[in-house]
Amino acid sequence: MKALVIAAGMGSRLSPVRSDRPKPLVRLLGLSLIERVILTARDASIREFVVVVGYRGSMIKEELGDGSRYGVEITYVENEEWRRGNAVSVLKARDVLKERFLLLMSDHVFEPSVLRDISGLQPDDEECLIAVDRHPAGYVDMDDATRVMLEDGRVVRIGKGLPEYNAVDCGIFSCPVSLFNVLEESVAGGDETLSGAMQRLADRGKLRAHELEGGFWIDIDTEDALKKAEDLLSSRLVKPTDGFISRYLNRTVSTRISRLLVKTPIKPDAISFTAFVLSLLAALLLSHGDYIAVLAGGILVQVSSILDGCDGEVARLKFQQSDYGAWFDSVLDRYADAAVILGLTYGWWVSHGGGPMTWIAGYLALTGSLMNSYTAIKYDSIISRKRKRPGWRFGRDTRSFLVMLGAVFNQLFCLLVALAIVANLVSIRRLCVLRRA
Amino acid sequence: MKALVIAAGMGSRLSPVRSDRPKPLVRLLGLSLIERVILTARDASIREFVVVVGYRGSMIKEELGDGSRYGVEITYVENEEWRRGNAVSVLKARDVLKERFLLLMSDHVFEPSVLRDISGLQPDDEECLIAVDRHPAGYVDMDDATRVMLEDGRVVRIGKGLPEYNAVDCGIFSCPVSLFNVLEESVAGGDETLSGAMQRLADRGKLRAHELEGGFWIDIDTEDALKKAEDLLSSRLVKPTDGFISRYLNRTVSTRISRLLVKTPIKPDAISFTAFVLSLLAALLLSHGDYIAVLAGGILVQVSSILDGCDGEVARLKFQQSDYGAWFDSVLDRYADAAVILGLTYGWWVSHGGGPMTWIAGYLALTGSLMNSYTAIKYDSIISRKRKRPGWRFGRDTRSFLVMLGAVFNQLFCLLVALAIVANLVSIRRLCVLRRA
Repeated sequence: MKALVIAAGMGSRLSPVRSDRPKPLVRLLGLSLIERVILTARDASIREFVVVVGYRGSMIKEELGDGSRYGVEITYVENEEWRRGNAVSVLKARDVLKERFLLLMSDHVFEPSVLRDISGLQPDDEECLIAVDRHPAGYVDMDDATRVMLEDGRVVRIGKGLPEYNAVDCGIFSCPVSLFNVLEESVAGGDETLSGAMQRLADRGKLRAHELEGGFWIDIDTEDALKKAEDLLSSRLVKPTDGFISRYLNRTVSTRISRLLVKTPIKPDAISFTAFVLSLLAALLLSHGDYIAVLAGGILVQVSSILDGCDGEVARLKFQQSDYGAWFDSVLDRYADAAVILGLTYGWWVSHGGGPMTWIAGYLALTGSLMNSYTAIKYDSIISRKRKRPGWRFGRDTRSFLVMLGAVFNQLFCLLVALAIVANLVSIRRLCVLRRA
Repeated sequence: MKALVIAAGMGSRLSPVRSDRPKPLVRLLGLSLIERVILTARDASIREFVVVVGYRGSMIKEELGDGSRYGVEITYVENEEWRRGNAVSVLKARDVLKERFLLLMSDHVFEPSVLRDISGLQPDDEECLIAVDRHPAGYVDMDDATRVMLEDGRVVRIGKGLPEYNAVDCGIFSCPVSLFNVLEESVAGGDETLSGAMQRLADRGKLRAHELEGGFWIDIDTEDALKKAEDLLSSRLVKPTDGFISRYLNRTVSTRISRLLVKTPIKPDAISFTAFVLSLLAALLLSHGDYIAVLAGGILVQVSSILDGCDGEVARLKFQQSDYGAWFDSVLDRYADAAVILGLTYGWWVSHGGGPMTWIAGYLALTGSLMNSYTAIKYDSIISRKRKRPGWRFGRDTRSFLVMLGAVFNQLFCLLVALAIVANLVSIRRLCVLRRA
């Protein structure tokens, strides 16, 4: 399925304050709005795009190119009459769309799941599908939203000023090619808004509603909405497998760092590697044995653990996730864990001795730590991902936090013993839980 | 799709020498022939079976029950005229088969892939599909095999004595219900063999051939064939991810042990656990430091490594594989690895000293060993499984073998250093290989 993206307008309420860039190029967490729309659609398996440009269209074309940079194909359609209504913009794409297509707005931010749902449906040939939200979130500006009145799964009325309504239009459509005829009629009849044409479809019983279920969407019309979208995207970075420390401590800091990092060209792999190097430094400091060095090392372990959240966050915010990236990060994390435990075992042995008991404790702590991660691969894939609410989870976030505590209180041997016991018990518990599951 | 299994005959060439059990109950590597047919079909997602019993049918019914033990549903049809041809047995199932069904012989051993292929095809309503082998393996008794002559993907002639033929019948069919009419005609016409009815279908152009591609099958008619099937099933236990030591040393021993173990009720998990306990014993011996203890420990590590192959082999031979079982085994293996490395590090430190260098070497060897297994999860899923031929692979089989060598030559420190270097380099290499892939 091709997607038609409308990017012809000026965005008068947003772009003027944003220098001379047209609204589709306004940046949100490291990507322009239109890049986000294209990458979101790509995540929903859309590979071909038709972009209608108008106001400063050449800037948009220059930034996006032919789409190969995103692994998609972009065709452009010019609309020199961009000051007219958006129905005119859609009409301009008539010649390049010969089959059912998705219609998207370049200034809407939404989740791939919304698109996946709507593009997977098979409506009647002449029917248009419109994504609607029955329970719009508090940040939706109801005065500005396009309101819709639903009856039995169909839209009966649509428009900005509707006095009675029971949902709002999310700006995502699955359109039959016959839409172009309706647009033509509507424009000829003097209504150049997309809503006008949609009302004509609704009058004929051809506008079917697809209700959003939990997916998020936001129309970026103002600076406020832009800020809100940033917060929304950031808040969605917490993962169901996040442990307690990660969720309530690390993520609050790491998402702030990530919001800065996305504005730089730094790649997720580079962040993983930096966190790894910090851990090696921490291990070196811990191995020194002196309290000050140990303290610094312990704090650095926690800093590295926080930074370690940023690689995935930046990857998700900039659509740079990859299986390899996630795996590369996890392998480095394991080596970082091993280095830190070796560092602190050696540090304690140098400063406090303890003979083979120190080494054996370190040994068991290392085994526990690595086995924790080894068993997590299967355990998370079966158990933790199903969780909706945060659950107790002993993972790297907790282990790193404990290392910092052990360093602060200069109780590295106790720490090793604690890690050795808890981490291994957690692995054994997982064996039992999965046997039952 | 239901499967009809013909198990009415006496199997005069095989069962008499096997006490009073009817041929379908003759045991092959821990399972009866008919159990194997049902479990193979279950692996190909067949859940409903109709079994035609005749000679000593009550024994068969007693052994298989209603199928719940195998997670399938079995209905029985009695054929008291089992001394007549097999077409009569098939006809007896007429009342319980109202849709296209698979027709299987209870004395054929084959792979699930063969069934999956044929049950996935959508032939014409009246067409019968027959699995044929154009290049039958050397062990197929051509004098006894049902020969077929193919022309343009259809069978034109079928029968035991065909002078000219270009393939053999594998005894696996996908049949339309109209087959029953043809069987009736054929029996009325005096031919009570299944081949007779098939020839009638062939005459009408309704017998389409499905050529086997690599899947193995064997018809168990004699003691020789039974022995051959044992060898074939055993030889298929080598996995594409097997390393050099595993392939050429461990499997040759472990498959022999497994052929004995399948005849006992011992479960794969119990074998995993026994191998684990042997490793713990080995670790204890290694930690002693004395050469004799170390030598015994080293040999025990290799014995445990061999036995560790048996859990998977028994599981596969008896259709007892489970995701959990494989994972349980791999977690125990990691703990066994950790115990062995701790044991030999401690043993060397007790007997030869070496201070922190011994411990650090052990530490790095442990990290390497566990990281080897950690990275293998992803690496094997992407790289090794694609291999057709054995490749070089540094895995647990190699590590255990090296431990034995280190113990034999009493060079445990060198062994630790070697493990530390090689195992970690292998993990780093995997990072590079997967980055390119």
